Amino acid sequence: MIRIGLLGCGRIGQVHARTLRAMDGARIVAVADAVADAAHALASATGAEVRSTEDILSAKDVDAVIIGTPTDTHFDQIRLASEGSKAIFCEKPVDMSVGNIRTLVEDIRKSGVAFFTAFNRRFDPNFAALQARLRDGEIGAIELIQITSRDPAPPPISYIESSGGIFRDMMIHDFDMARFLMGEEFSHLSAVGSCLVDPEIGKAGDVDTAAVTLTTASGRICTITNSRRAAYGYDQRIEVHGVKGMLRAENILETSVEVATEAGFRRAPTMHFFLERYEAAYAAEMKAFIDMLNGKDTAVPGIEDGLRAQILADAASRSRETGMPVALED
Amino acid sequence: MIRIGLLGCGRIGQVHARTLRAMDGARIVAVADAVADAAHALASATGAEVRSTEDILSAKDVDAVIIGTPTDTHFDQIRLASEGSKAIFCEKPVDMSVGNIRTLVEDIRKSGVAFFTAFNRRFDPNFAALQARLRDGEIGAIELIQITSRDPAPPPISYIESSGGIFRDMMIHDFDMARFLMGEEFSHLSAVGSCLVDPEIGKAGDVDTAAVTLTTASGRICTITNSRRAAYGYDQRIEVHGVKGMLRAENILETSVEVATEAGFRRAPTMHFFLERYEAAYAAEMKAFIDMLNGKDTAVPGIEDGLRAQILADAASRSRETGMPVALED
Amino acid sequence: MIRIGLLGCGRIGQVHARTLRAMDGARIVAVADAVADAAHALASATGAEVRSTEDILSAKDVDAVIIGTPTDTHFDQIRLASEGSKAIFCEKPVDMSVGNIRTLVEDIRKSGVAFFTAFNRRFDPNFAALQARLRDGEIGAIELIQITSRDPAPPPISYIESSGGIFRDMMIHDFDMARFLMGEEFSHLSAVGSCLVDPEIGKAGDVDTAAVTLTTASGRICTITNSRRAAYGYDQRIEVHGVKGMLRAENILETSVEVATEAGFRRAPTMHFFLERYEAAYAAEMKAFIDMLNGKDTAVPGIEDGLRAQILADAASRSRETGMPVALED
Amino acid sequence: MIRIGLLGCGRIGQVHARTLRAMDGARIVAVADAVADAAHALASATGAEVRSTEDILSAKDVDAVIIGTPTDTHFDQIRLASEGSKAIFCEKPVDMSVGNIRTLVEDIRKSGVAFFTAFNRRFDPNFAALQARLRDGEIGAIELIQITSRDPAPPPISYIESSGGIFRDMMIHDFDMARFLMGEEFSHLSAVGSCLVDPEIGKAGDVDTAAVTLTTASGRICTITNSRRAAYGYDQRIEVHGVKGMLRAENILETSVEVATEAGFRRAPTMHFFLERYEAAYAAEMKAFIDMLNGKDTAVPGIEDGLRAQILADAASRSRETGMPVALED
Repeated sequence: MIRIGLLGCGRIGQVHARTLRAMDGARIVAVADAVADAAHALASATGAEVRSTEDILSAKDVDAVIIGTPTDTHFDQIRLASEGSKAIFCEKPVDMSVGNIRTLVEDIRKSGVAFFTAFNRRFDPNFAALQARLRDGEIGAIELIQITSRDPAPPPISYIESSGGIFRDMMIHDFDMARFLMGEEFSHLSAVGSCLVDPEIGKAGDVDTAAVTLTTASGRICTITNSRRAAYGYDQRIEVHGVKGMLRAENILETSVEVATEAGFRRAPTMHFFLERYEAAYAAEMKAFIDMLNGKDTAVPGIEDGLRAQILADAASRSRETGMPVALED
Repeated sequence: MIRIGLLGCGRIGQVHARTLRAMDGARIVAVADAVADAAHALASATGAEVRSTEDILSAKDVDAVIIGTPTDTHFDQIRLASEGSKAIFCEKPVDMSVGNIRTLVEDIRKSGVAFFTAFNRRFDPNFAALQARLRDGEIGAIELIQITSRDPAPPPISYIESSGGIFRDMMIHDFDMARFLMGEEFSHLSAVGSCLVDPEIGKAGDVDTAAVTLTTASGRICTITNSRRAAYGYDQRIEVHGVKGMLRAENILETSVEVATEAGFRRAPTMHFFLERYEAAYAAEMKAFIDMLNGKDTAVPGIEDGLRAQILADAASRSRETGMPVALED
Repeated sequence: MIRIGLLGCGRIGQVHARTLRAMDGARIVAVADAVADAAHALASATGAEVRSTEDILSAKDVDAVIIGTPTDTHFDQIRLASEGSKAIFCEKPVDMSVGNIRTLVEDIRKSGVAFFTAFNRRFDPNFAALQARLRDGEIGAIELIQITSRDPAPPPISYIESSGGIFRDMMIHDFDMARFLMGEEFSHLSAVGSCLVDPEIGKAGDVDTAAVTLTTASGRICTITNSRRAAYGYDQRIEVHGVKGMLRAENILETSVEVATEAGFRRAPTMHFFLERYEAAYAAEMKAFIDMLNGKDTAVPGIEDGLRAQILADAASRSRETGMPVALED
Repeated sequence: MIRIGLLGCGRIGQVHARTLRAMDGARIVAVADAVADAAHALASATGAEVRSTEDILSAKDVDAVIIGTPTDTHFDQIRLASEGSKAIFCEKPVDMSVGNIRTLVEDIRKSGVAFFTAFNRRFDPNFAALQARLRDGEIGAIELIQITSRDPAPPPISYIESSGGIFRDMMIHDFDMARFLMGEEFSHLSAVGSCLVDPEIGKAGDVDTAAVTLTTASGRICTITNSRRAAYGYDQRIEVHGVKGMLRAENILETSVEVATEAGFRRAPTMHFFLERYEAAYAAEMKAFIDMLNGKDTAVPGIEDGLRAQILADAASRSRETGMPVALED
């Protein structure tokens, strides 16, 4: 039985708690949150104790921690968890600073604790199936990947202001997906971005519509487009071209119902929100974390994956600002 | 060069004339129509002469006739054409009376002229491909066929009144398609029908919504549904289930454009009208007729197919009226 | 807190137990099963007691029973539960005998206990959405309903032998769905059926491929087709035509991944098994049962719905055997 | 009656000749080709005379010329046609040199002759419908356009060597489409390209897989991807995102037939070849040319459109070679 300490009892912490309730082999023993009410509510729902973050990170009866707190607290928590020999499940991004993540990579390497960077989309059943089929060679060597990711509507400006910008906050998922699918690191990147959705986003120094092109040393290409707006719902699509054909994952619609009238054939909008769209992915990533801790041979995104994605997000931000392509360090 | 006499210069006659203009190996030499203006217009467009029907049916310089005149004139024209040793291309239905068609079958058998019953849907590229794949055994032995056929809107009541009823006028195409696909004759049939679209259709003694179930001696099943109304356009679908899976032909939409908005994903209505939907089928059936006359080994619907479809339409009409199933003669 | 006694700890009992674990407002207090190990396993997973069926049906601390036992035990259990003033959730079919169900209808009427016939498909989010849109008048008055239901593969012959036949075992779901969608009772029915999948099914006196046509007094039509085989998975589709258009619910595929190669564009098979396909429906029907017990205004299928479906299944069996249509009693 | 001289009797010349045969209001009076047999074959099929190119360009009885000859002959032919006051329909590209096209723009401006640059895809019914709906504001202001264009297989290396490279030969269609849809000129462009399909293409100095990102002064973005290979056929898709949603045009498949087996649901490959895929577009563009000559108010791509597309192709070639973005002249 893996004993888990949960740091952060907000939306995503609650998702993980629900998953763990229905699982055998792991149990939340302690929860912490800066908001006491949030901690107590989740403690009561899970049968766990409320403790301080520090207590959890040094507790003898905690094997692993789930870090779902604000990004600027990750660095210290990861260091303490690593010192306390806890396995770590950390929400993305690991940290806003590539330098900090490099420090953590070193810490994790030294302490030898297990680390899981929560790139949940790798665990979406559709994207996971697509990736497995790529690895099985179903379409041969990859030539071109196209990733589309559009939110239904922009978050509040206050969120934008502390988000690190669209590339670090939103496209970071797509950078990880691009790496996950491509199976070869990217060597060059160029980015463009505009403020077309909400001028306030521009005033906050960010963009809301962006396109990035990445290439690998062997010439494979990936394009990613992002927008903070999609009237028809949460748009999450992948298309991969290879020597022998194309593999793509289409959107998931709210229902399978279609109506045909004089106006034509109309299907439902896409599932609207990430918690709903990626419900199965959140459950599957937690299962993969527990499986890993139980010694199963499970492929999971590690801290290096968190680092690599952040490097790409930094490069894209720089390319967008300068208008120039960026050569990525090896 | 096949020399053709065209009887009937209406909508369908014009379609065939246009097809023949673009073909090598055949040429319209004479046209006839009860409406002189119609005959002269088509003569001028094709370079053919206007003649009387009788002249065409006995002309030395005519090898084949296309009969696109009202159904009640078919019987006499076919007999004369048969006597005159003309190959015959005849629009469906061959005749409203099964007895008359039996007489014609005998005539055609004796004279040995080529006869083509214009069941155009067999030549639709999609349905033809589906049937070829059935024959190739792609889904193994057939178990169940489902045919959906819905007109966008009912014809004028005057048309309904002389149409012979929905089974003889509209579902006759589906009866032929069912036979074409099944490859085994039907032994039993039961039909229901209602007047749900326009009460005037009911007053004319007809129904506008109908469902027929057919079975073969070996137990294979076919269901056909018809309606005189489909808000979303001309609905023409086939679905065939076999041991190893299903083959289906979906509707053809007006364009491939899809719009996604808050209301969801909307594609175009189906192609609205039979002349547009079956444009390729009309061209292909005429090509098949000419190919047959040129000695190519071409599978075409003959007069027996016209007879069989009419027998099914009669049986369906009777079943609908009596509420009882009908055993089909061998 | 609704206190529940669970009768039958097999596959479906476990599904309901899992649903109830994750719900607030209801709790399983006792379980029973003819197989002691099954009862103890579920008791241990839910924290309930193992008791005898009789004890549960008369227990003071049980408010409602879930009956997931073999069909031939339903009658006695329902009577006892009714006498014991327990609310009843009963798997379909309520009983194989229409006469017995009529007796139970009377019993339930007298005792006034709540009764839920577990027609789970009414609670499938897609079918429920379709039905709600029909009721909202999205396509106007209904003209024609087409229901397709195909199992991936036939059950064991031993199951077939005690199943009551395809109409009572399999199509009963579709009969209920037809009533749920149509909103008007059927007045006539005719059925055909064949043994095309497995000759052993025929030897057992049953058919494996069937088509039924139902009509209402006002002339609306419904066709249902069933097969015990579908190579591409569990086929569950509905199509409803109305004055203003069509509403349809398409199959749910295993993933959203599509591959395009020289052979064309290939999507996944349908979800293969009913437990997986209707997972959300099972959870939603249990929620509806608890909501009803908590006094919420919830539309649920009652015992009369169980009776009506069984009447249709009986009539279809008779029609298939005699080859004649059946007029349904009012 | 517009009298037409046809220069170039190859594949595309034959397509235009066939279209004109079926049209009223225009007639081919003379044809020319460097290969005498080709000219005579087309003359015989159309009833036109064979003449020399020079004769046609100065003929009194020719109102318009269709230029379907090799690109390096366009410049002289256009100048002569312009001097001879012939309306001009010219296949793309107008010329390989932007400088030459600027000269021709000036010539055409002075002579005042009508000029049609044959960007056929603007006349594809699907893309034309999409563009019309964009202009009607169906999805509001445009934010992002994504164009996918993939050939089924690369052309011969000899063709590649004289093609001007993938951006001038293949993506030029997409550049025109991007301008046609966007309705605002592009201000910046960056391109990447690789040789992944055939190393011989790389030896010829070209790439076979390419991605280009374009932006407008107002920040709208367009991404274009091209490949010389697509196992599943000719891939021609457009997706446009706007404030109120997305409009997209999907591929056209060979048939509407779908097969479902244990492997899933498989539809046909895309139409394989551009002559087949754009058959309707070729007919529609010729109709638009004749309509324009007959004084109808018809929007057609002029010589400036040919110039603009070539400028983009040049810029993309340069960006790909230098690895740097290119600012486009106004």
